[in-house]
Amino acid sequence: MRELLARTARPGVISFAGGLPANRNLPLEQLRVCLDAVLSRDDGRALQYGPPYAPLQELIAGYMRERGVVCETGDVFITSGNQQGLELVARLLIDPGAVVAVEEYTFTGVMQAALGHGATLAPVAVDLRAGLDLDALEDALRRGVQMLILIPDFHNPLGVSMDAASRVRAAELAARYGVPLVEDDPYSALRFAGEPLPPVKAYDDAGRVFYLGSFSKMVAPALRLGWMIAPRELQPRLTVLRESLDLESSQLVQRTVAEFLARGYLRPHLEQLNAANRERCRLMAGALERALGGQAHWTTPQGGVFIWLVLPGGVDTQLILNTALDAQVAFVPGFAFAAREGAGRSAMRLNFSNATAQGIQEGMERLLAVVRATIDDRFPAEAYRLLAADD
Amino acid sequence: MRELLARTARPGVISFAGGLPANRNLPLEQLRVCLDAVLSRDDGRALQYGPPYAPLQELIAGYMRERGVVCETGDVFITSGNQQGLELVARLLIDPGAVVAVEEYTFTGVMQAALGHGATLAPVAVDLRAGLDLDALEDALRRGVQMLILIPDFHNPLGVSMDAASRVRAAELAARYGVPLVEDDPYSALRFAGEPLPPVKAYDDAGRVFYLGSFSKMVAPALRLGWMIAPRELQPRLTVLRESLDLESSQLVQRTVAEFLARGYLRPHLEQLNAANRERCRLMAGALERALGGQAHWTTPQGGVFIWLVLPGGVDTQLILNTALDAQVAFVPGFAFAAREGAGRSAMRLNFSNATAQGIQEGMERLLAVVRATIDDRFPAEAYRLLAADD
Repeated sequence: MRELLARTARPGVISFAGGLPANRNLPLEQLRVCLDAVLSRDDGRALQYGPPYAPLQELIAGYMRERGVVCETGDVFITSGNQQGLELVARLLIDPGAVVAVEEYTFTGVMQAALGHGATLAPVAVDLRAGLDLDALEDALRRGVQMLILIPDFHNPLGVSMDAASRVRAAELAARYGVPLVEDDPYSALRFAGEPLPPVKAYDDAGRVFYLGSFSKMVAPALRLGWMIAPRELQPRLTVLRESLDLESSQLVQRTVAEFLARGYLRPHLEQLNAANRERCRLMAGALERALGGQAHWTTPQGGVFIWLVLPGGVDTQLILNTALDAQVAFVPGFAFAAREGAGRSAMRLNFSNATAQGIQEGMERLLAVVRATIDDRFPAEAYRLLAADD
Repeated sequence: MRELLARTARPGVISFAGGLPANRNLPLEQLRVCLDAVLSRDDGRALQYGPPYAPLQELIAGYMRERGVVCETGDVFITSGNQQGLELVARLLIDPGAVVAVEEYTFTGVMQAALGHGATLAPVAVDLRAGLDLDALEDALRRGVQMLILIPDFHNPLGVSMDAASRVRAAELAARYGVPLVEDDPYSALRFAGEPLPPVKAYDDAGRVFYLGSFSKMVAPALRLGWMIAPRELQPRLTVLRESLDLESSQLVQRTVAEFLARGYLRPHLEQLNAANRERCRLMAGALERALGGQAHWTTPQGGVFIWLVLPGGVDTQLILNTALDAQVAFVPGFAFAAREGAGRSAMRLNFSNATAQGIQEGMERLLAVVRATIDDRFPAEAYRLLAADD
């Protein structure tokens, strides 16, 4: 993935490959003001070692309560982002040989966290409109699973979200089967259509859900700051574990983000960010409709940063990638997100949050020309292979 | 340790317990200038995801070359500090059941990293003047060791440094026995007396040394930034592993530290910091000499932030701690740093970098009154116990 992203960083390439916000949508001035305010007010304390910054924990707890989660300041465990949250939970709870259920396509970091601690993956079917198939999840639980890791909001790579009923049922299933459910949520604040939904954690009466939230996508990636709402009895073990990983999160960053939230900078920032993303998503989906309407499937996100495109069977997006890079446009082939070996070959993940509106139009023209040529060539190519096999 | 440090954070308590720089010695204005400069120059890129910041890697490589290490920009692996460096190396190289050699007293995070990956510790004897006993290290290697973790400069908790000959021999031993040597070096820039010595890595012709450097002590803890110079062939695996832990280090912080170094802010910052530490160390050692001269041993650091005090046998510093806290002064009992169970009971670690000069004088008065009373009481107390045993 890093190698692919490095290849797509060449000048002239329009990249739909990463998951980056656009530089110009980042809250540069607001963060500068907050950094200055914190350094003036807190002097050396802002640069020092220290325990989790309680005013930040309180602001995050308030944000989570607004989203329907019962929690207090002390429940907010500060992390350096959701990858660390995944690592912490995986290290704490996964025994080698354990089976971890994930969406059949999922964020590579989710799979790394589980596989890196000796788990095997149980891919659970997803629907391109409704997200996770809860019946399939229950089947997996019945067969025996030690942990669930789900991305309910604006799924990476699919872009879809679980509806409220599915969230309720996911929490109930975790409770009934006594299985920890990790809710990886970097994207829920990036909603640009439809109504906000409470996280699965809001339905977690049994205390089985580890909620992972992050400021990377909702404020800025370089903060390296996130949080976890974990079952309370596990917080001491998480604290010890986190200390052994990297000690603690930056006081300067924690105080700066607390200032950002306390000043009310989050809502206007998200409004401009989501308005920009809505328009970019609309342009990308429009280009797909014009070029591939009736011949391919793609998701219709109400937020987040990704569209998942499924081309007709037999098209291999990994093979298309080099042609696309020659045409100066990039994406991530679907196989990279497949929890089941061999799946996702005809799919690709398209990011719409990073390019300009013009970049999206131009990039989609380049990409769809490559895709169309591949689809149109497919039958002759297959015919040729059949002839060759006859020799 | 966290619990102890929380207890010592009460108002009125003079703490020699932590390893913190003093707030007023942190380069607040310089970092503010650098943050502003970076945000103005790099705009959104400073807040974005990104690969390790090459200008920072080059500046660190230059710093390491000045210290005698053969390295290039690409050899500098960016970390979020030495605890992460320890975790990465431990995870990469320690198999469960492995034996890891450490100084017989060492930083708790060193022990956590090894024990957390299933290792057992082989404590190697140290001398309170010369540091690590190299003959004892060779004995340990002969008996079979999978990894060495050493703190050659201004050791935590001992305050002593290995001399040049010991460094050469440590590198040779690692090479001869084919064992990776992790050199944990957060303190070498904090020298206030004597001549700088090259790190063990400077003698590492065989490519066995993992050097860990950190900006936490030399610039500011809240940066959460460090680096590793690792054997080159392992960098790809370290990169994948680091991604799975927390993805990457902050672009904003990396660029800010690069600016700090490029502007030449490091040397004057270290000059004022080390001058302050020299004076505080002198005051603390003077107080020890006046109260305990001839009755106890303590180390004479040429830098760093710690003095190690060894009281007469039979004094238990863990028992003293509560009395000391009642007297509003704190330290860390030596047993907390012992790699061998039951060791270090009559020792304590004293930090001299955090308190003011006045705080050191007052705190040492409080502490040494408690210590003197304990020493003076010891024989009567023992006599009492002997009588009681006779009953």
